[in-house]
Amino acid sequence: MLVGSVPIGAGAPVAVQSMTTTPTSDPEATLSQIGELAAEGCEIARVAIPDAASLGGFEAICAASPLPIVADVHFDHHLAIEACRRGASALRINPGNIGSWERVDAVIEAAGEAGIPIRIGVNAGSLAKDVEVRADLTHAEKLVESAVSFVRHFAKRDFSDIVVSAKTHSAMETVEVNRLLSKALPEVPLHLGVTEAGDFSQATVKNSVALGILLTEGIGDTVRVSITAPPVDEVRVAWQILAAVGVRRRGPEIVSCPTCARCSIDLMSLEAEVARRVRSVDAPLCVAVMGCEVNGPGEARAADIGIAGGHGHCILFAGGEIIATVAQDEAVDALMGEIAARFGA
Amino acid sequence: MLVGSVPIGAGAPVAVQSMTTTPTSDPEATLSQIGELAAEGCEIARVAIPDAASLGGFEAICAASPLPIVADVHFDHHLAIEACRRGASALRINPGNIGSWERVDAVIEAAGEAGIPIRIGVNAGSLAKDVEVRADLTHAEKLVESAVSFVRHFAKRDFSDIVVSAKTHSAMETVEVNRLLSKALPEVPLHLGVTEAGDFSQATVKNSVALGILLTEGIGDTVRVSITAPPVDEVRVAWQILAAVGVRRRGPEIVSCPTCARCSIDLMSLEAEVARRVRSVDAPLCVAVMGCEVNGPGEARAADIGIAGGHGHCILFAGGEIIATVAQDEAVDALMGEIAARFGA
Repeated sequence: MLVGSVPIGAGAPVAVQSMTTTPTSDPEATLSQIGELAAEGCEIARVAIPDAASLGGFEAICAASPLPIVADVHFDHHLAIEACRRGASALRINPGNIGSWERVDAVIEAAGEAGIPIRIGVNAGSLAKDVEVRADLTHAEKLVESAVSFVRHFAKRDFSDIVVSAKTHSAMETVEVNRLLSKALPEVPLHLGVTEAGDFSQATVKNSVALGILLTEGIGDTVRVSITAPPVDEVRVAWQILAAVGVRRRGPEIVSCPTCARCSIDLMSLEAEVARRVRSVDAPLCVAVMGCEVNGPGEARAADIGIAGGHGHCILFAGGEIIATVAQDEAVDALMGEIAARFGA
Repeated sequence: MLVGSVPIGAGAPVAVQSMTTTPTSDPEATLSQIGELAAEGCEIARVAIPDAASLGGFEAICAASPLPIVADVHFDHHLAIEACRRGASALRINPGNIGSWERVDAVIEAAGEAGIPIRIGVNAGSLAKDVEVRADLTHAEKLVESAVSFVRHFAKRDFSDIVVSAKTHSAMETVEVNRLLSKALPEVPLHLGVTEAGDFSQATVKNSVALGILLTEGIGDTVRVSITAPPVDEVRVAWQILAAVGVRRRGPEIVSCPTCARCSIDLMSLEAEVARRVRSVDAPLCVAVMGCEVNGPGEARAADIGIAGGHGHCILFAGGEIIATVAQDEAVDALMGEIAARFGA
């Protein structure tokens, strides 16, 4: 299926998405945030429509956005129907909180008329009513059973342009639910993410654990890493997860040691400066920044290029071999020069 | 095996360790850092001995440390032997960079006399010499084959008080290497970690992905999360990984939403304040901090207790039910009061 021009599922690259946190009634602020997200590699942006007053802003956002926009609507099917008519590239609803099958059907009809896909979401707050009360199911099974029942309902309405998400704030429950979903709905693309995952550190851990396990098992077609932090952070972490798992890579990877008593330079500042400057490099290089000229070149020999700090100077190395010795305050310039010379980047 | 009083392997809880970044020649600074690590839940501290001038400081550190100390020595077997005599609770060497089997044997003898275990480390810079040149092996296989050959050498010297680590800066290679090691050396405890993992964000991602996969497969007995950041961050992330995987939990877990256009409060500040204040709580509670009074209680119903922001006020909820409405600036006090009342924490 396609969200705007971004394919999801059926072997397409795992797509990175995020969600705006600005008021939707303020298109300027929201478009500015979408611009930041796009610059960081976000491919799909989701925008909440909490009330009718947000619809005008939503329409303006869709008209000007460089990324396809998913309308995020809870509870009120009228808003969802309006979103289809105002330029949404996709709709996200949780059928379990829309109120009735009739209302869900009205949304399905509107999405069909607009020719846009629907993400069917399920979480602890939006289980299917008849599933929620079943004492024979675990919470994970209730999420799966709800999703499956929603997909069946959509199928009866001949609507198959869907992606499914079932989210919890537990990494391992996320793994369990999506393993079950991928078996129960093998044809349906899955949207992965740990929800309400917490602050930067905990959310990065939970999403990395859950998505790491699932993506290495071949499960998952698009990801949204939820973090209580600016949404650009979500995009950066999503790409880092995809790179760590080896399914997609965007730009250079920096390898840097944790420092120890052998380190005689301010490695954190050096690493931060290198990270900042290599962001403009497109090539998928591995760049090492090591605190120790003794261990550095050997331990980081798999890196394409690197620097290691010594006592008052730095060494440049490539493929584990030392290629130059430079003054410490010229090290990053020298590194960037070598990257340009060797990799044309 | 035991590092001080901390058991590693054979079904013991996965132990959390980190490494000091202060000069070992400055015992006061190093002990202060070890104190911070211990307060964050670190169970074993590693300290580098880069030169003979560090030995006096190392001895003072071992004498006063609240945590067992692992001496980290590269290249110079004399330093390793001295460390055994100066109070180390364990030794970490990479036999591949010690220079010769005779020197390794001298270290084994000293550790045996001191009655302390040895962590046998392998990385790209310290492969076994005869393994490094083999063109028939992948890099991962070279790490495994090196580790196995080192363990065999130790076994021939009747030294089995060991833990093995084989580290790379790739999450997936770390997974591959440790899966192979756990099969090749089923009796040997494994120390897990992704090395030279980069800055906070990337290192957290890589370690979470690799350790998440391995720990859920039952592989790994102790962890050190390498981050180019203050070592307390390593300990915090290590615990978050153990909690996310479900193998160990320390203190409360915070569940918080990523915010969206529905959010009318400064959730990041609120989350940060709650996170800071619940650190004193020992109980393994799940505490929710949600931006939206409509979705919050439902989506976070699995939380033991939580707050959700509204327009000028917050609601307190427990088990998905609203229990009180309070002014926004009193919300955290009210939450902490409820935690104390309900959970005696």
